[in-house]
Formats: sequence, C-alpha cells, structure tokens
Amino acid sequence: MSSDDFRALWDQIVPIGRDERTGGYLRYAFSEPELRLRDWFTAQARARDMPVEADGNGNLFAWWGDPLAGGAVLTGSHFDSVPQGGGYDGPLGIVSAFAAVDVLRARGVVPARPIAVAAFVEEEGARFGVPCLGSRLLTGAITPAHAAALTDRDGVSFAAALGAEPAGARPELLGRFTAFVELHVEQGLALADLDSPVAVANLIWPHGRWRFEFTGEANHAGTTPMTARRDPMLTFAFTVLAANKEARRLGAHATMARVRVAPNATNAIPSSVVGWLDARAAEEATVTELVEAVRAKAAERARRDGTLLAVTAESVTPPVGFDAALGERLRTLLRCPLLPTAAGHDAGVLAAHLPTAMLFVRNPTGVSHAPAEGANDEDCAAGVRALADVLAGLTGPAQPTAARPAQPIAPAEPA
Amino acid sequence: MSSDDFRALWDQIVPIGRDERTGGYLRYAFSEPELRLRDWFTAQARARDMPVEADGNGNLFAWWGDPLAGGAVLTGSHFDSVPQGGGYDGPLGIVSAFAAVDVLRARGVVPARPIAVAAFVEEEGARFGVPCLGSRLLTGAITPAHAAALTDRDGVSFAAALGAEPAGARPELLGRFTAFVELHVEQGLALADLDSPVAVANLIWPHGRWRFEFTGEANHAGTTPMTARRDPMLTFAFTVLAANKEARRLGAHATMARVRVAPNATNAIPSSVVGWLDARAAEEATVTELVEAVRAKAAERARRDGTLLAVTAESVTPPVGFDAALGERLRTLLRCPLLPTAAGHDAGVLAAHLPTAMLFVRNPTGVSHAPAEGANDEDCAAGVRALADVLAGLTGPAQPTAARPAQPIAPAEPA
Repeated sequence: MSSDDFRALWDQIVPIGRDERTGGYLRYAFSEPELRLRDWFTAQARARDMPVEADGNGNLFAWWGDPLAGGAVLTGSHFDSVPQGGGYDGPLGIVSAFAAVDVLRARGVVPARPIAVAAFVEEEGARFGVPCLGSRLLTGAITPAHAAALTDRDGVSFAAALGAEPAGARPELLGRFTAFVELHVEQGLALADLDSPVAVANLIWPHGRWRFEFTGEANHAGTTPMTARRDPMLTFAFTVLAANKEARRLGAHATMARVRVAPNATNAIPSSVVGWLDARAAEEATVTELVEAVRAKAAERARRDGTLLAVTAESVTPPVGFDAALGERLRTLLRCPLLPTAAGHDAGVLAAHLPTAMLFVRNPTGVSHAPAEGANDEDCAAGVRALADVLAGLTGPAQPTAARPAQPIAPAEPA
Repeated sequence: MSSDDFRALWDQIVPIGRDERTGGYLRYAFSEPELRLRDWFTAQARARDMPVEADGNGNLFAWWGDPLAGGAVLTGSHFDSVPQGGGYDGPLGIVSAFAAVDVLRARGVVPARPIAVAAFVEEEGARFGVPCLGSRLLTGAITPAHAAALTDRDGVSFAAALGAEPAGARPELLGRFTAFVELHVEQGLALADLDSPVAVANLIWPHGRWRFEFTGEANHAGTTPMTARRDPMLTFAFTVLAANKEARRLGAHATMARVRVAPNATNAIPSSVVGWLDARAAEEATVTELVEAVRAKAAERARRDGTLLAVTAESVTPPVGFDAALGERLRTLLRCPLLPTAAGHDAGVLAAHLPTAMLFVRNPTGVSHAPAEGANDEDCAAGVRALADVLAGLTGPAQPTAARPAQPIAPAEPA
C-alpha cells in the first residue's frame, strides 16, 4: 500500500458532505452525505466479495470469510462527523480497513479466521445527543426504547431516521468476534512529538456530557431595569468561566461549546439558556469533582441572578483500559509507542465485551473536530500497513488473543 | 367603546401566530401569521370603507377621508413580534386605531381632515435585524439597497420577502400628514404605580445594537489541553458579565440575549461565537461610554483567550424627544401623566419628520417581549377612547399642531 494507493481510495469520499465554504464536514447520522458513505461502504464490500450484514441498530458489517464461523477479528470505525468537523475522525478507520484487506490479499494472505469491517452509526452523538449510540445499542449499553426516542434538533427520532425500532443488544453477533481493533486519526500532537506515524492506545479517559438548564424570566431588554431582571444568560456566562477555571485547577478538560437560547432575540431577555458541559480527566474522581464544583458555582450564581438551574447527566463514560495483552502484542508487533486518549470511541464501548485495541495515525496539526484535522498520505499508508499486520497476526496461524468469558449483556441506561 | 366591544375586536387576532405551548407569539414580518394579520387589516379597512394604500416598503395605510387632501393625522403601529413575544406590542396600536374610528363614527364625528391607520413592517427587527425597518424606509433613514439586501436566518432577503425592491423614501406621502400618534402597550410598571390607564410619552431613550464577533480555533473538546485552546466562548461569557456590570455602574441598560455559535457541538471547541449587545440609557453619552467600556473589557479578555474580536454597530438610534407642543396638548386633553420610554418605536423614526406623540396603555405585569405582556380590557377600552379624543382634537375644527417645515429626506445608513 503506497501513499498513492491510499490517496486513490481516500479521494472517493473526500467531497462527500464537505462544506466547500469552510472545508468542514457535515456528515450527521442518516443524513444524505452519511447515507452516500454507507452506499460507498456497500459498494466497496461488494467489489471485494464481502457480504454486508446489518445489525438492526444502524451498524454495518462487511465480512471476509464465513460470517458464522466464529473467532472473527473486527475492525472499522464510523462515518458520522461533528458539525464542521474534520474528514478523518471515523472514516479513516473504515477506509483503512478496506485498504488493509487489499494489502493482505496482495500479500496472498488467506486468514484462518474471518475478518469483518464495521461502520458504526452516530459515534459523535452530534445528531441524537448520545455518542457511540450504535455500539451502545449493539452491546446493550442503552435500551432500544431509550435510543428509539432520542430526537434531533428538528424533532426527528432515532427510530424514524433508522426506519425501524432498533434491534438492541445482539450477543450472538458479538460472540462471533474475538477482538476489535479500531484505527483512528490522532486527536493531539503526541505522535508529532514522538516522531512515529502510528501508536497503540492503552486507555480512554473517563468523560461525559452534562446539560445545564438555566431558567429565568423573559422580558423587554430596553425597558426592564437591571435590578428587576432574572436573566439566565448571566448565570450561563458565569458557569462557562467557572468550568474553565475548575478544569485548570484540577488538571482536567472542561468545555461548554453548545448553547441554546430562548427566544434568542436581541431585545428580549431570555426565558431560558441551555448549555452543555463536556468534562474529562485522567481519573473518574476528578471528573466527578469537576462537575460538582461547576454545578455548585452555577447554583450559587443562579441564586444571585434569581434564576433556576437543573443539571442532567446526558452520558457518562467510565475510564476504559484497553486489553493489556492485546495492546502489548500490537505494540511489540508494530514497535510503536503507547498513548492514552481523552476522546471517546466505539472501541471504548466494545472493550467491555471484547479484547479491544486502537491504533492512532499521526495528525500533524493535532487539531480534531475541525477542518484542520488530518494526516498525510504517507502516514495513512503506514497506518494501513500496520492494521494489515495486526489483522494478519490476529487471524493467522498463531492463536488470537483468547476471548474473555462473555459478559452478561443487560440493557442499561448511560448513567 | 366598552371593554366588551374592545374584546370582540381583539379576539379576532388573538390566535394568529400564537404558540399554544408557551402562549408566546411568532409573528415575524411577512411570515404566514403576519400575512394573515395584514389580510385582517385590509378586511377591517374595507368593512369601514377605508381604502388601503401600500407604500412600496411593506407598510400599509387605511384612509378615512381623501388620501390626497393633505393635513391628515396618522395613527397605527405594527403587527410583527419578537420570537415568543407578547400579543400587545404593536397590534394593540392598530386594533385601537380601527376601534377609535368606530368610536368617532358612533359619536357622529366627521373629521375636517383625513385620518389614516398605519401598519408598519418589521418594527422589531426580529427577522431582518434592523428595527423600525418600514418606517426607516418610508422616511429615507435607510436606503432601499441596504434594506433590500438584509437577510433573515435562512438567507431570505428583505426584497425577496417583500416580493420587490423596496420603494424607499416617500416624501410626497409623508407630506400629507400633519401628525402621527402611536398607541402602545406600556413596557414597564410606571402606570401601575401612577394609577392611570393611559400616559403620553415625552421621549425615547437613545439605544442601539452592537454585534460582537469572537473568533477562535475549533478543536476537539476532549483532547485539546486547556492551555492550548483559543476558545471564543470564554471571551463571549466574560463579555456578557462585563456588559451587566458596566450597565449597573452607569445606570444604563445592557443585554446580551442573542448568541450564535459555530459549530455549536458539545464536543467541539467553537470556531466562532457571535453575541449581540442591546444598550440603552437616558443620555446618548452614557450609551457610548457603556459600549466602549464593554468593548474594552472584551478586547482585553480576547487577548488573554487568544481570540479575535470585531464589533459592528448594527443600528444606533439617538434620543428622540417627541413634539413638546403636541405632547402638552394631549396631556391636557387626556389629563394623564407624561412618561419616558427605553424602547424604540416607529414613532421615534417618524418624529424627525412629523409632530409625533405616543400614548401608553397600562400593563399590569410590566413585562414586554414575553407572553406575560398584556393590558386588561378596561384599560384597552380607555386607551381607544383616549385615542379617539386625540384624533377628534387633531382633525376637528381647531387647527391641528402646525406641521414642521419639511426636513430634507436624504438616504442615510443607520450609524
């Protein structure tokens, strides 16, 4: 796999869902661009004689080898983006998976066990609010009823977008896999500093999303005295600054990047402002301390502003340590560094059910979730070759990493 | 005019554009509800044998008497609302105008000079961003080209919504009027405290809208260290709190109630945040000092946050002192108090060209631009009778207030 081979495949999807004005991507789950990417997935699978299996939750699996043989190795990622996101977060893992199949076939490899390429739905949570929705459904980490009722900003439900009630947990499908390896563009500058095109991830920081709803009293911006106001924008603004301060104090990450104001008119004091807190840290206790500190400061300010505050945890993900034996095997095979990540991934959800690993491909800007996100073609080709080596190693004559005893799959709401 | 008579007329428009969930109104200029209100206007005029004249700028005039006779007295207001606004701000002045015609006819009054009822377009600026757009066009305070190019949030231009290029200044139409009296619901509690159903306004506070554009760098909310961020939400939040502090310090009013975030995703640091500052004070110098103080604080914070700030004045309205002689005549006639207001009105725009006055009707909640805005039917009926008295006085045998020498009408952009 040369960088030119990679580029030829990559160029097929570059224009899909790109905002030509900004260079950012708008690839929401089940939007027209994401549906075109799914069609591309099916065409790529067909061109490689890989039958496609849909899991009834919006996730797709393309099989090289007998889907029912068991002992399969899963790779892949997601197509969906955040609004005005980069083109690599997600799609690089799917394109690289098909390219790795090509590399193995060019090498004459016939895997002893099946390989499957996955496209997971709604990893970003940008449309329906819950990230990793497809992998959560597949593993039973969210109930089908809960997922079905999630709505986008236009009130369209996940079930309506999917075209059916989601199937929910699929233990017989999960049981056919012995490992999952997700390749992903790096979302920081660690590899640029380490001078390596590829790394193996060893853990995902605990993280979550909390909705802060500030309620005040709508009134005329011109005629209402400052002392007679109950302005929720003030409480929101104070909370944004408090989240930043607390995150710096605790060595954590806190972001309030999404806001919804009603009525959002220049000359009307808002009746309500809703802001979302994204909080992450190396330790779960730090995330909890951070969110509680922000909540306390917001509540104190709400008392001064005469506003009301309600805080709802929309999704909370505990720390995920990837399979140590699998990670060590990959690191030795690839002779590359180990890195933690503060970003959530479908691999983090599947890690509770399968030995799971992630490969990161160097990102020269370190930027992600924005148009500047990227990787050069040489590094992408190196990533494909590394993934091919990993798939060959896990499906070849040597025994793949032993599957963990299957964990019971019980529907559970995200905390 | 009894309160029951008023209610019968008022009930015809109560449901139009009302959000049944909140009780708030969504009556944007040229939206379906506002077009229905225009149809209602035309039907009411026809029922009273009042021909309707359109001025080519989106404003309507219904005439009692010969439109070309000159020396006419103008009354009326606007139909459009802020998002989730109240039902009285604007429509009360139009409904009361038709009701006042009924009162005069029931009294057997035959005015010696014509009376016209106006419906001005886009008074709130909620759709196209510039308040009093219709009266600004009519008087030449904004050029037709500037107004035509204004767009709403969906990119629809004012010209497209109007269905034509606006006609712009109409000095020959303005020249037919000798006075304008706008009746309006009060937007504060002064009349509740003064125990009077009606007041005459003597001045409008200077006020304006400034757009603060904060530009940063989009990046991943999870993986970007706090120290490597250029987050424009922080600068916006600081500016919201600074505007509040500076307004309190200066005895002014400042509000940041509208915000637009890109990409507005939970897990992506924004690339840009735009916030609008609404600033008002009794003195023009205080408004200037307020805006400069907020701008300076925002710029200083932007340096700390590594963000960029651009401030644009979208509309700036100097103080408007209504015609003193006309105001005194009305106050004597109605035996009611004089009040200032911090809200902008079409009357403020027309006051530069015609002797102009406003009548306020008591608002028991003091709330405006929100569903709680209102007036009781007895006070509304008292307002209609007061307006009828004023119209009779200004068009009767006594000479109406002499028209000012016509001011030259030159297109000028709002500062």
